[in-house]
Amino acid sequence: MISGLNREVFSHLSYGLYIVTSIRDGRFNGQIVNTVLQVTSEPPRVAVIINKNNLTHEFISYSKVFGASVLDTSTPMTFIGLFGFKSGRNVDKLSQVKFMEGSTGTPLVTEHCLSVLEARVIDEVDVGTHTLFVGDVVSGEVMRTGEPLTYLYYHTNLKGKSPKNAPTYNPDKT
Amino acid sequence: MISGLNREVFSHLSYGLYIVTSIRDGRFNGQIVNTVLQVTSEPPRVAVIINKNNLTHEFISYSKVFGASVLDTSTPMTFIGLFGFKSGRNVDKLSQVKFMEGSTGTPLVTEHCLSVLEARVIDEVDVGTHTLFVGDVVSGEVMRTGEPLTYLYYHTNLKGKSPKNAPTYNPDKT
Repeated sequence: MISGLNREVFSHLSYGLYIVTSIRDGRFNGQIVNTVLQVTSEPPRVAVIINKNNLTHEFISYSKVFGASVLDTSTPMTFIGLFGFKSGRNVDKLSQVKFMEGSTGTPLVTEHCLSVLEARVIDEVDVGTHTLFVGDVVSGEVMRTGEPLTYLYYHTNLKGKSPKNAPTYNPDKT
Repeated sequence: MISGLNREVFSHLSYGLYIVTSIRDGRFNGQIVNTVLQVTSEPPRVAVIINKNNLTHEFISYSKVFGASVLDTSTPMTFIGLFGFKSGRNVDKLSQVKFMEGSTGTPLVTEHCLSVLEARVIDEVDVGTHTLFVGDVVSGEVMRTGEPLTYLYYHTNLKGKSPKNAPTYNPDKT
């Protein structure tokens, strides 16, 4: 029998690192997300989890579309800093990187990214501090070959931290 | 602009490999899942995605509790075969492995596992062929040190496949 929660168990869960983007009234924004996942194969459907305080959350809730780009291991910390530790309320993030527009109008970041996809939201699940957006994948393309950036690689090799708005934030480690 | 969906983009998403377990009327079952993820930090909350045809789905829907164990890289293919490619309708899987009972009554597999957690379901989201169960984490403990088994490691080093009931199943590769 076990009792109590040792939060170290959460450090054993595996994730990638992605940039999730959206659009609102012609304005673009995006942020780092560790939770982009395929939820069904037929139809191809993905989910992303976004903190309710984030500007990208506001954009996805409004436009009901999002993009996701898979970061690779070439990604420098300055790039992660721009998308993970700055708010689109203060900085025009997309003006500083290479991206293309998807068929939904959402920007798809291509710099340091292996592949891109875009989705239309079909469900929004309130999970507390965050919303889980479920979307039907509209289009997706591989940009190039390489190694996906994982959360483990980010923590181990890049010595990265989890910001307070991340679902994986560990209050025991502040 | 991109159009159409190249399903290879999904192969760039990163996952771990887990055994998700549950209980119904004193009967135990469990299955391999690639989608166990933390969805919020406060309160500590996780989500798992299970195919509606699976016995574990029936058990979780009924008892509203589930366990999750993080597999490590020592896991042999026979173990993955038992939990990933056999149904609990035909085999008593838990009788063949080491586990302990959680405080919710759900079994928590400890063999080849780095850590275990158990959760009570607070929401069930119908995403089509699968259900996404969101749960409050009741307890969790680290079993030992080691390297989490990732989906990439499973495909690359163990030459594993994705069964038809997996959310990541690729119909282009049959």
